[in-house]
Amino acid sequence: MPDAAPPVDAALLDALMTEVSRFGATPEGGLNRPALTAEHGQARDWLCATLRERGYAVSVDAIGNVFGVLDLAGPDAPLIMSGSHLDSQPMGGRFDGAYGVVAALAAIEAVRARLDPGAARCNFAVADWMNEEGARFQPSLLGSGVFGGEHTLDFALARRDGAGLTVAEELARTGYRGADAAPDPSAYIEMHIECGPELEKAGRAIGPFARYWGALKIRAAMIGEQAHTGPTAMALRRDALLGAAYVIAGLREMADTASGTLYTSVGRLEVTPNSPNIVPGRATMFIELRSPEPETLAAAEAALERLLPTAAAKAGIGFEVISIDRRPAGRFDPRLVDLAETEAAALGLSTMRLDTIGGHDAIPVGRRCPAIVVAVPCRGGVCHNAAEFAEAADLLNGANVLAGMLWRVNAAGGALDAA
Amino acid sequence: MPDAAPPVDAALLDALMTEVSRFGATPEGGLNRPALTAEHGQARDWLCATLRERGYAVSVDAIGNVFGVLDLAGPDAPLIMSGSHLDSQPMGGRFDGAYGVVAALAAIEAVRARLDPGAARCNFAVADWMNEEGARFQPSLLGSGVFGGEHTLDFALARRDGAGLTVAEELARTGYRGADAAPDPSAYIEMHIECGPELEKAGRAIGPFARYWGALKIRAAMIGEQAHTGPTAMALRRDALLGAAYVIAGLREMADTASGTLYTSVGRLEVTPNSPNIVPGRATMFIELRSPEPETLAAAEAALERLLPTAAAKAGIGFEVISIDRRPAGRFDPRLVDLAETEAAALGLSTMRLDTIGGHDAIPVGRRCPAIVVAVPCRGGVCHNAAEFAEAADLLNGANVLAGMLWRVNAAGGALDAA
Repeated sequence: MPDAAPPVDAALLDALMTEVSRFGATPEGGLNRPALTAEHGQARDWLCATLRERGYAVSVDAIGNVFGVLDLAGPDAPLIMSGSHLDSQPMGGRFDGAYGVVAALAAIEAVRARLDPGAARCNFAVADWMNEEGARFQPSLLGSGVFGGEHTLDFALARRDGAGLTVAEELARTGYRGADAAPDPSAYIEMHIECGPELEKAGRAIGPFARYWGALKIRAAMIGEQAHTGPTAMALRRDALLGAAYVIAGLREMADTASGTLYTSVGRLEVTPNSPNIVPGRATMFIELRSPEPETLAAAEAALERLLPTAAAKAGIGFEVISIDRRPAGRFDPRLVDLAETEAAALGLSTMRLDTIGGHDAIPVGRRCPAIVVAVPCRGGVCHNAAEFAEAADLLNGANVLAGMLWRVNAAGGALDAA
Repeated sequence: MPDAAPPVDAALLDALMTEVSRFGATPEGGLNRPALTAEHGQARDWLCATLRERGYAVSVDAIGNVFGVLDLAGPDAPLIMSGSHLDSQPMGGRFDGAYGVVAALAAIEAVRARLDPGAARCNFAVADWMNEEGARFQPSLLGSGVFGGEHTLDFALARRDGAGLTVAEELARTGYRGADAAPDPSAYIEMHIECGPELEKAGRAIGPFARYWGALKIRAAMIGEQAHTGPTAMALRRDALLGAAYVIAGLREMADTASGTLYTSVGRLEVTPNSPNIVPGRATMFIELRSPEPETLAAAEAALERLLPTAAAKAGIGFEVISIDRRPAGRFDPRLVDLAETEAAALGLSTMRLDTIGGHDAIPVGRRCPAIVVAVPCRGGVCHNAAEFAEAADLLNGANVLAGMLWRVNAAGGALDAA
């Protein structure tokens, strides 16, 4: 049994949260810092400078993931990584992503401060994954997805935003088209606000995610014919937006009538040409289907395959499925779930195992090494919104659990079974 | 009876159409030249230079309408104006608007060439109205609307595009924030492609618009709450886009079940924040209701007043009506309708009286002086689309009718009753 976990410096954690929240801050107290915008670049510049000041070796890989490695135990020691992402949703909040990055740094610094000379058996790394949110470039989890082998580098670099700019171009513009090899971690632990109301409702402090829901992200276009809304007779209109409206209404009905637990959404809709007096020629929907149950997800996909042609036929138009991104349901590493609970208990913090419905970088990273996300409460479960908020005490609890987990894994020489 | 109408120079008309089609040309053969874009500015620069080369006095009024006045009869003579607009829809066609401007110039040049010295009893003007289309800035018919007294100058200058830029700013940027007084015409005649299939179907050459439909242009927003599409339970979602989908579907049903002739559309939809994994917090719809019958339009407005709260309640959200732009149905000047038919008959061209459903600059201009739009056929009735096309022979027929009308009005000293 190693000695007690090192306490995180609350002032440091506070200061890091305050500093990182400056970049892309909105008047409402939120953040507008989508991936590879100028504000995102400024936040990353700040992170790199902060890491370097503290002696971390900063590297940037070819898809723009940023890593800061603290070499304490020499080149052959296992590397334990923690982090999250600095990009936000448009008009998003301050905590989603940024907390996990600054908690990683604060926790590693706590471990470093407490470690006796010669007691380091692991090295540590902070990770800032590129484009977790998928707001500007789809799919989400893009940098961690390349790291985890879900996407090829070429695929990821060629993704385009709504204005046609590629990831490659915008990485270069913001100075994050790196050429370094990514570090190779033995374990990955990500802290995150819950983005759901369960911890707050149950009055618990720490929520290791045990499972992640499956998701299908489908991009599909309704294809009509652009025409003047004035002289074009109703019978002759082939209105792509009308077809999309039928799909959007049908998706909600699918969720309401599903036999299992099913979440459906169209969060983004691109209408072309989107002029007040033109019958839309094209309407591209960004559809999501989410469920913890594989059979429910499969049934929903089948229902969508019926819904698209039915809606198109009702509007007298065509459609095409542009892409399908399948994210199967799964489990995070159970040893890391146990470790989070053990460490929380040692700190006197209550816990509750959770599912995550939203994606997290730890999911694709988990294809390369044992991984987990550990959640702390956020007010009202609100996320992706300027009103997103987490108490400083809850953030500190999470960082202390992380520091304790890093401490135990170090003591075990990186062996999770012994941690 | 004056002598025969002067023939328009076909080569000149062709050359003008070809030249004006260069600005904002798309690979598909259409135009992308929304109001106050760089391409629109280039087209207007070309027009001003062309007018000046031919001795027209060019002026620009405070809302950026461009006029080229040919003084043939001295300052006290009546002014007869013709023109249209050089702005296009995004991904629109080459003929909608531009034809009316170049036909005006070609027809006035024909009259000028045939007039004996001392026979001029009128002066002539070419008009290029600012922002007819309403694609980038709403409402449409903005420049002619200020000219006709429908809008104040301040209102028009303060309109914003989707990026928040004002008309005033963009006029200044493109060099068309003028300070000249607008000329004061005694009559206004606008040539335009039909943007409908009636002339082509009936095999007629010339279609004076006798009536214009009424239109209601309503901007209304569905107001939900921005939330993460992952963890937010379906029961808790307040999805603005879902509410908009119910409205869009309901509007189509309104048209299909109306007792009279009713056209309905949502051509533009602004979804906020429009991110794939955010439940939309706001969806702003640009709704149009059109009918030739005032009672049908009134019934449709009442039905929309019921539809908006019903759709909002079904989606569990709120809504607001942002603006309503009412355009009552009406008639163009009957003397000008007769004159167009007389002149077409003199040229051996078949005619057909039409309604216009889309708006035209001649409608607000008609509040200041007798006005009309005379249509020529376009292929398949297609408009607001790169495939928009009109035969050179049909364009020439229209320009010749216009030249004949100008000729007769000149001979009558500007008195329409005597023309």
